[in-house]
Amino acid sequence: MIRAEIEQKFQSLQKDIISSLELADGIGKFKFDPWQRAEGGGGVSSILESGQILEKGGVNFSAVLGPLHPGAAKALGVAAQEFYACGVSIVLHPNNPMVPIIHMNVRYFETGNTYWFGGGIDLTPHYIVDQDATYFHGQLKNACDAFSPDFYAEYKKWADDYFFLPHRNETRGIGGIFFDRLDAENTGLTKERLFEFVMSVGESFAPTYTYLMKKNFELPYTDKHKKWQALRRGRYVEFNLVYDRGTKFGLETGGRTESILMSLPATAAWIYDYKPEVGSDEEYTLSMLRKGINWIEKT
Amino acid sequence: MIRAEIEQKFQSLQKDIISSLELADGIGKFKFDPWQRAEGGGGVSSILESGQILEKGGVNFSAVLGPLHPGAAKALGVAAQEFYACGVSIVLHPNNPMVPIIHMNVRYFETGNTYWFGGGIDLTPHYIVDQDATYFHGQLKNACDAFSPDFYAEYKKWADDYFFLPHRNETRGIGGIFFDRLDAENTGLTKERLFEFVMSVGESFAPTYTYLMKKNFELPYTDKHKKWQALRRGRYVEFNLVYDRGTKFGLETGGRTESILMSLPATAAWIYDYKPEVGSDEEYTLSMLRKGINWIEKT
Repeated sequence: MIRAEIEQKFQSLQKDIISSLELADGIGKFKFDPWQRAEGGGGVSSILESGQILEKGGVNFSAVLGPLHPGAAKALGVAAQEFYACGVSIVLHPNNPMVPIIHMNVRYFETGNTYWFGGGIDLTPHYIVDQDATYFHGQLKNACDAFSPDFYAEYKKWADDYFFLPHRNETRGIGGIFFDRLDAENTGLTKERLFEFVMSVGESFAPTYTYLMKKNFELPYTDKHKKWQALRRGRYVEFNLVYDRGTKFGLETGGRTESILMSLPATAAWIYDYKPEVGSDEEYTLSMLRKGINWIEKT
Repeated sequence: MIRAEIEQKFQSLQKDIISSLELADGIGKFKFDPWQRAEGGGGVSSILESGQILEKGGVNFSAVLGPLHPGAAKALGVAAQEFYACGVSIVLHPNNPMVPIIHMNVRYFETGNTYWFGGGIDLTPHYIVDQDATYFHGQLKNACDAFSPDFYAEYKKWADDYFFLPHRNETRGIGGIFFDRLDAENTGLTKERLFEFVMSVGESFAPTYTYLMKKNFELPYTDKHKKWQALRRGRYVEFNLVYDRGTKFGLETGGRTESILMSLPATAAWIYDYKPEVGSDEEYTLSMLRKGINWIEKT
């Protein structure tokens, strides 16, 4: 399996996801913004702003290559030589606070004789609804189970640990799956089969999220819900700017800023020491932002 | 000079600044939120929300002590032993986009036989007005010149380098002064005199900023100006969460999250690849967000 094949399939994935999202949104259209990287490669950022269901989001593809900077090599624990990296990254922020924020990433990295795949999908509801959480995790489990009986449990735990804000003692949302540095040796799957797994995760994204979009976008909401959404978006900003490895690595190594920060919401808010009312839906959501919840068996 | 004296003077400084800001604002009142730290010491956060001129901000005092964690000691380049740190930190976000955001910090740190002072003031106008920038830098120069003819130039450059967003290739605002790890040896001033300098910086804050508050808060503005303010606040969030050493150090070492993140604005916004109109005030501001501008001689 060669780079060109991975690149072509990731780029098709980007296009397919965009088509599905535009169809589900009904109004919003993605704008394509191709870019080149001086040191090698480039990408196509595709951004939607002001849709019917989606307020702001991106479905980005990139394939970059060139010399690995010493700092980056050190951070990755590999020798500083030529590298190649290719992937699709998605973050979508909806208008209606009853529709969750979603993130998806699939990526392939190669340097010297080493390669690995990484990726994941995680959901950040402004309001946690147990049935939706069960559905979401069930979809991810299906995508995993076809490849290994261990993947879902393992990568679900990885997501719980990764999408976590230590300074808030909160998970970002209800988690999902996260995996990194997967290769034939540590998974027992061939490289080809591993790529199929990664593609299967990528292909599960559109049906899973468009179901949640269509199910929830017409639910009524008030100013109180919008205010809470803005505060939760503030937390999303905190996670992405303080902890997210891809964001930090990208900004530090001179990545394309606008493509990296497409993950930030149209608006966000902060209130000093805000505490939701006792017994409110907001308080329920906060109480569920913790690791180790078995969402599949919750409902 | 002992800790108790520094602590008492910093706490008086906090109170004096709060009085001046409340007087200038006319409506807003700071709420005091005292807190204790399990390992030793504590602080008093004082937060204003929904004032007439100030929308959100904090004037925080803290004095903490205890064992220095290995990670923190490594970051500071000192031995991991007992430490003591005391300071006042301020960030203020105004309602009117014609009033600038301001930040001030004065601090004292001690471990083993080592001590140092640090601090600074920097201004982040949403719209840069040359005359205001000249006034602001002139005030800082006055505070510096009484102690050394070199301080202003040296600490102005330090601020230009520190309050900078590499991923945007922009300074945060028009800078100001920034200094760290000042002691008798590297400044040629006695510890007592150095503390007087730091207090002089702290005492210059209220008259300087309340002048800008009162001068600008009644200027007319439109939705276009509010939108630009929200985007500039987004950049402020990016600086504080990605680069600000105090914020990173605080969050990583288990500091009090709400006190640290009082620096974030009530609201912020992001638009993909936003570019202001050619010839607009917004474009002028962007063009001035760079290092090395001599603001004192600009007007």
